[in-house]
Amino acid sequence: MKLERNIHTFIGCDSFYEESRIVIFGAPFDGTASYRPGSRFAPAEIRKESFGIETYSPYQDKDLLDISVFDGGDLELPFGNTPRALEDIEKYSEGIIQDGKIPCMIGGEHLVTLGAVRAMIRKWPGLNILHFDAHADLRDEYLGEPLSHATVMRRCFEILGEGKIYQFGIRSGDREEFLFAEGRVRQRKFDLDGIGKVMEELGDKPVYLTLDLDVLDPSQFPGTGTPEAGGVSFKELLSALLQVKRLNIVGLDMNERSPAYDQSGISTALACKLLRELLLIVG
Amino acid sequence: MKLERNIHTFIGCDSFYEESRIVIFGAPFDGTASYRPGSRFAPAEIRKESFGIETYSPYQDKDLLDISVFDGGDLELPFGNTPRALEDIEKYSEGIIQDGKIPCMIGGEHLVTLGAVRAMIRKWPGLNILHFDAHADLRDEYLGEPLSHATVMRRCFEILGEGKIYQFGIRSGDREEFLFAEGRVRQRKFDLDGIGKVMEELGDKPVYLTLDLDVLDPSQFPGTGTPEAGGVSFKELLSALLQVKRLNIVGLDMNERSPAYDQSGISTALACKLLRELLLIVG
Amino acid sequence: MKLERNIHTFIGCDSFYEESRIVIFGAPFDGTASYRPGSRFAPAEIRKESFGIETYSPYQDKDLLDISVFDGGDLELPFGNTPRALEDIEKYSEGIIQDGKIPCMIGGEHLVTLGAVRAMIRKWPGLNILHFDAHADLRDEYLGEPLSHATVMRRCFEILGEGKIYQFGIRSGDREEFLFAEGRVRQRKFDLDGIGKVMEELGDKPVYLTLDLDVLDPSQFPGTGTPEAGGVSFKELLSALLQVKRLNIVGLDMNERSPAYDQSGISTALACKLLRELLLIVG
Amino acid sequence: MKLERNIHTFIGCDSFYEESRIVIFGAPFDGTASYRPGSRFAPAEIRKESFGIETYSPYQDKDLLDISVFDGGDLELPFGNTPRALEDIEKYSEGIIQDGKIPCMIGGEHLVTLGAVRAMIRKWPGLNILHFDAHADLRDEYLGEPLSHATVMRRCFEILGEGKIYQFGIRSGDREEFLFAEGRVRQRKFDLDGIGKVMEELGDKPVYLTLDLDVLDPSQFPGTGTPEAGGVSFKELLSALLQVKRLNIVGLDMNERSPAYDQSGISTALACKLLRELLLIVG
Amino acid sequence: MKLERNIHTFIGCDSFYEESRIVIFGAPFDGTASYRPGSRFAPAEIRKESFGIETYSPYQDKDLLDISVFDGGDLELPFGNTPRALEDIEKYSEGIIQDGKIPCMIGGEHLVTLGAVRAMIRKWPGLNILHFDAHADLRDEYLGEPLSHATVMRRCFEILGEGKIYQFGIRSGDREEFLFAEGRVRQRKFDLDGIGKVMEELGDKPVYLTLDLDVLDPSQFPGTGTPEAGGVSFKELLSALLQVKRLNIVGLDMNERSPAYDQSGISTALACKLLRELLLIVG
Amino acid sequence: MKLERNIHTFIGCDSFYEESRIVIFGAPFDGTASYRPGSRFAPAEIRKESFGIETYSPYQDKDLLDISVFDGGDLELPFGNTPRALEDIEKYSEGIIQDGKIPCMIGGEHLVTLGAVRAMIRKWPGLNILHFDAHADLRDEYLGEPLSHATVMRRCFEILGEGKIYQFGIRSGDREEFLFAEGRVRQRKFDLDGIGKVMEELGDKPVYLTLDLDVLDPSQFPGTGTPEAGGVSFKELLSALLQVKRLNIVGLDMNERSPAYDQSGISTALACKLLRELLLIVG
Repeated sequence: MKLERNIHTFIGCDSFYEESRIVIFGAPFDGTASYRPGSRFAPAEIRKESFGIETYSPYQDKDLLDISVFDGGDLELPFGNTPRALEDIEKYSEGIIQDGKIPCMIGGEHLVTLGAVRAMIRKWPGLNILHFDAHADLRDEYLGEPLSHATVMRRCFEILGEGKIYQFGIRSGDREEFLFAEGRVRQRKFDLDGIGKVMEELGDKPVYLTLDLDVLDPSQFPGTGTPEAGGVSFKELLSALLQVKRLNIVGLDMNERSPAYDQSGISTALACKLLRELLLIVG
Repeated sequence: MKLERNIHTFIGCDSFYEESRIVIFGAPFDGTASYRPGSRFAPAEIRKESFGIETYSPYQDKDLLDISVFDGGDLELPFGNTPRALEDIEKYSEGIIQDGKIPCMIGGEHLVTLGAVRAMIRKWPGLNILHFDAHADLRDEYLGEPLSHATVMRRCFEILGEGKIYQFGIRSGDREEFLFAEGRVRQRKFDLDGIGKVMEELGDKPVYLTLDLDVLDPSQFPGTGTPEAGGVSFKELLSALLQVKRLNIVGLDMNERSPAYDQSGISTALACKLLRELLLIVG
Repeated sequence: MKLERNIHTFIGCDSFYEESRIVIFGAPFDGTASYRPGSRFAPAEIRKESFGIETYSPYQDKDLLDISVFDGGDLELPFGNTPRALEDIEKYSEGIIQDGKIPCMIGGEHLVTLGAVRAMIRKWPGLNILHFDAHADLRDEYLGEPLSHATVMRRCFEILGEGKIYQFGIRSGDREEFLFAEGRVRQRKFDLDGIGKVMEELGDKPVYLTLDLDVLDPSQFPGTGTPEAGGVSFKELLSALLQVKRLNIVGLDMNERSPAYDQSGISTALACKLLRELLLIVG
Repeated sequence: MKLERNIHTFIGCDSFYEESRIVIFGAPFDGTASYRPGSRFAPAEIRKESFGIETYSPYQDKDLLDISVFDGGDLELPFGNTPRALEDIEKYSEGIIQDGKIPCMIGGEHLVTLGAVRAMIRKWPGLNILHFDAHADLRDEYLGEPLSHATVMRRCFEILGEGKIYQFGIRSGDREEFLFAEGRVRQRKFDLDGIGKVMEELGDKPVYLTLDLDVLDPSQFPGTGTPEAGGVSFKELLSALLQVKRLNIVGLDMNERSPAYDQSGISTALACKLLRELLLIVG
Repeated sequence: MKLERNIHTFIGCDSFYEESRIVIFGAPFDGTASYRPGSRFAPAEIRKESFGIETYSPYQDKDLLDISVFDGGDLELPFGNTPRALEDIEKYSEGIIQDGKIPCMIGGEHLVTLGAVRAMIRKWPGLNILHFDAHADLRDEYLGEPLSHATVMRRCFEILGEGKIYQFGIRSGDREEFLFAEGRVRQRKFDLDGIGKVMEELGDKPVYLTLDLDVLDPSQFPGTGTPEAGGVSFKELLSALLQVKRLNIVGLDMNERSPAYDQSGISTALACKLLRELLLIVG
Repeated sequence: MKLERNIHTFIGCDSFYEESRIVIFGAPFDGTASYRPGSRFAPAEIRKESFGIETYSPYQDKDLLDISVFDGGDLELPFGNTPRALEDIEKYSEGIIQDGKIPCMIGGEHLVTLGAVRAMIRKWPGLNILHFDAHADLRDEYLGEPLSHATVMRRCFEILGEGKIYQFGIRSGDREEFLFAEGRVRQRKFDLDGIGKVMEELGDKPVYLTLDLDVLDPSQFPGTGTPEAGGVSFKELLSALLQVKRLNIVGLDMNERSPAYDQSGISTALACKLLRELLLIVG
């Protein structure tokens, strides 16, 4: 016989690196999770459970087999050393961008976004961030730490500058975060209204899309570290993302899935479906 | 003392066979489940948990105690032999129909529907199927097998012919299934709109109602083998079913409940309530 | 060193008794739960998980740190002796009311409300009850018992008299309960519509607010003893409660959270958020 | 067709009442459970899961089909009224004894034993109790209540008198319980040693066997309300019970199984196997 | 960059096929599971969780990195067609054997062994089977089916003939199975005693080792379809397997792990460790 | 009324700081957990569940109410900054030692021990460590990090010097760790044999006792991050600890309990019981 070692990718994403336009990779880091850790397990779980969905999307009438995506597996990140983990993410993202491909990172906690953004900004100095989340993530520090899932957008803000971050679905934070946002960050509270108008503003500017899955209602997405009642529905989110299609998305991530908190598996199943749609939108 | 052996039926369904109009039975088969098996446990679980709901429906102002339903327990189906399991279901359904009663089968996986339909078609040659589901189930074969939960509607189609199957809520399938459906099957994607118009078309024709519970959104019904985000709500489904009341329903089933994937029990509780409503609709 | 013993309160509720306007206490009793017990664990769980939410509410632009709430911990109630448990609750509530404070009781099963109402009625003879629930709880007895979670509103009705109980969201009960309600209890079935009109009627009359969390849809609140499909959403409930703000609320409770049935923890997280909002509404 | 309503019994126990020597019934009461309730669900769960074991015992080379056992289902006990629940158990046990049969009660919490013992003592005034348990259950009261799972053996002691209770495996209690036991109760701490000698003493005297399943180590029996480390193994317990075979057992029970705390189901599977062995020992 | 697609193997088993002495592959089939299905998920789960153990064994002072093992991933087996699944397993095993390598199959249910044995017997006509299991698996048919997890050893017996099967740890079966075994199968009930003597008998004859993990006590291995109390401990099993080292093992499998029934993950962790030891024994 | 805020301590440990000989505190840190995080939740869980055990020990005939223990609650440690977390632990331990009390730390992951040991060594330069664990924890670094749960004993070794660490129950590690141990660390593999001899050697020298709960067999203690089959039993461990009583224990900790992985709660129940015994041994 002639046999290959076991290849394990997100469903329909088994193209070779050279021929791919999009590169999936996992960033299994949850070191600053303050409440319920476990998002480190998300990338592997999403890959595994992806075989429960179809490669074809009736929403877009498009199939993953029509596009070419490479799945590089998970980064091996150090535990307990946050700066080094971010550096590893930055370096890996950098490589993908240099090769003219679109990185699609699967977290991990939300702080991983910072690593990718640090790489993106060098190639796209005018980068904008489109941010879906339940939490503002705009603290200056959290329990004395500047690098945290709760500060990640503040750190990104410091890199991108004013008016470059567009937040949707925000429904939790401390008072200071909401005050800070005023005039500095484009923030839509509670829902996704106004996404059309943002499309117009962004036009063909380079956009990094970061999707904290806890923007979804916990009923549809229980498997996350900090479930926050009153979220948007899958249909609402999908509808918003389908509009985003027209944007110039140069990188993206999906984060804060924490499998241990969803025995039923509906969160992973949803994440898989959403990732399929995102790949078809970008690809 | 004078004591009877332990009788265990769905709540309020303890009539004798002879006096009943509807006959409940379980078809605990999940042999072709490709993703997450376990629907075999559903009928027993539904019976057990039914004592958590009332027999009275405020939606219909009607009580299970007002009608007469017999619960025959579960068929003892062979494991690992799909054709034989279907034959057993067909034979049992046949008996009920011959006695002028309405079979109400609790799956098991969706393939069990094929056994019942094979029995129904002999008595009702012009049979129509009203089909609620997340999946089209119209493949010609699945991993080389013609008998599968993913092919069940294709097999029914071959029995009933064109224009006899009405699908609602479909949001998953491969491209071929959707292409096949065009012009052959009445398919409503994503939601339940247009059910009123279908009522008119069906008039008093004999209808078999098959309800794959995964048509519901996974948030409300996590306990199913293949949870598919973006489903209909319980309220939407109940509203549609209450309209169906006017149809000539000659048989029905409810399937794809998989208890192991719902630790909270909300799926079984919902299924029990839905079964109560269905019995009151038909009874 | 100088160290204090471990104080454990609901987040942001660590004021001293004397200086507080609201007094939280747990009533960990579930002795009459007919279906799935476990609500006894709710108060401790809610306290523990409250550290997963913020003290600030973007819905009300108000912070728990702005008001003063005392958390007295849980009553130590006897198991298996229902009358005595109710007496203990009554006595404790009495003390709080006498000190001019607002009791905020965390159940436990719904029967605990009876203990509090017995105390309230002495100070507020014209007391009204605003009642959110999936179940009417209006039976005269349950399995021969007059003291039960299924009879609690009937017992309250006997204390308050006709026209004093306003029920919302009711979607389960036996036929007799619904018949009994007619003309005696203001009952809104299935949803929360008409809350505005009730506001007007109640004006500044003293109101006891009792929130059975199973009024919520089981998708958003699976962790309850008797999940009942077809409930209201968190957004709908929060919207109704924000209106209630104008009422003269002299006492309140939140009950029927049963942690064991929600492995994901989304129910407790929701209950914590809801309690925060309630405290900010009343405080 | 001619069909019987769904009969649901413990595996191999479907004899008619009249022809049976042993009568199984469930006592689904857990009203005084102080820690983790849920043993009310045990009898139904044990019946359901019994179909995962064989009727044949290789330990005794004997088959349930060789003996005749009737399964009367579960008593419908009131919730929240402990004295009434005990009366119902007493009355039912009385009926069985009067008919010359051996009652085999499945709890429920341990207090249910008191109901059965009250019935037994009338027919067998010299009754002895053989008691396997992790807890002494010898308190005079618990949180002020005389009727409690923690006082049940004290109440039995008051009925039977000194020297009639033989305890094995006890490894938890307060100091007073252990002091009380001295000279009044035959108590073996920590393990089952000395059971042979007790056999001799008991000879052919009438014995009621009460088995609190938490005598087992929590590793083998996690599904109980108060898991207590350091218990006996299944093999040790089975070995002791096989010796007990020579005794004149006139009644027995098995209690404190709490299914919600054992997701894996190994506790119920063990309880089913143990019940099979007990029936074969007595039958 | 230059990146390889995501390779996913059992820890330390990433050799290429050509250079390997042992070939791991998964047979994710559980189609005849009569009680609790789910062993289909075992191979993927074992691969994933294997990264929680070390490659080094202090028991054997040997490391997986010292030997060469290839992991070919899982076979894609048809659902609902038992004969075809067995054929696929047979063909794959055949290929491995022809290449002079040792197949190490990870089930799946126990029936998968039949596929491998059919392949083995052609190369090793005098094949013996060393069988660890809680169940005899010697029925002639199960619910009318000759191909079942409960008949697999009977089918193997028909292929190998008398005196070639050595069973250990058997503690469940119907009476007929135990009668059948007498004089035909070398059966050790309840424990692993006598393994040394069997070693002598087997000498250097070709041996196929089949390990049904439910031979272990459910306390240590809860995650299996049919947990059977009274099993052997991990230490006892490991000790027996270390003796087996001297045998001429030409093929092996490990089966009946069912991840859904072990939320704690201790079963998979144990299976991974056992697989490491087995590979080091054979490799 | 006059009410105190809710005090929440380990059962029977509500003495004031000044009057106590032992000081319990939680170190909820799991930042370097490489496999399954969650030990951060252990201290709070252990406090909560402690009310399921008695204060009296029949093993020692001694009661927690006989001694005086203060419970200071949990340290508020930063997430994602390992050095700072260790400093906080060191400082807090230092304070306790300076006040002449014995610190009893509840982890958290095993790395927290390093913080305490750094404080202990200043007062007790000749400190010895008695270490129960499944893992050697002697790596020099882990994924490039010197501060890790897998390196903690190596770091302690660097502080204490050769021959001061006594390890028991070790059954996992890489080859280098076992080689390193030779001649430097007193290491007993697999079990607890030889503890008596170690007692003699240690005499009245100051000893820090660190108990990694994964030394226990996963069947009895499933709720840990890295379950390792083949561990010691609770009875064996308790027996060893009761011998340790004679030593001069100047500090201790218990770590690596991870509640999320033990739905049944038997691990926490065991940890509570063990902590009671430890306090009674030291107190």
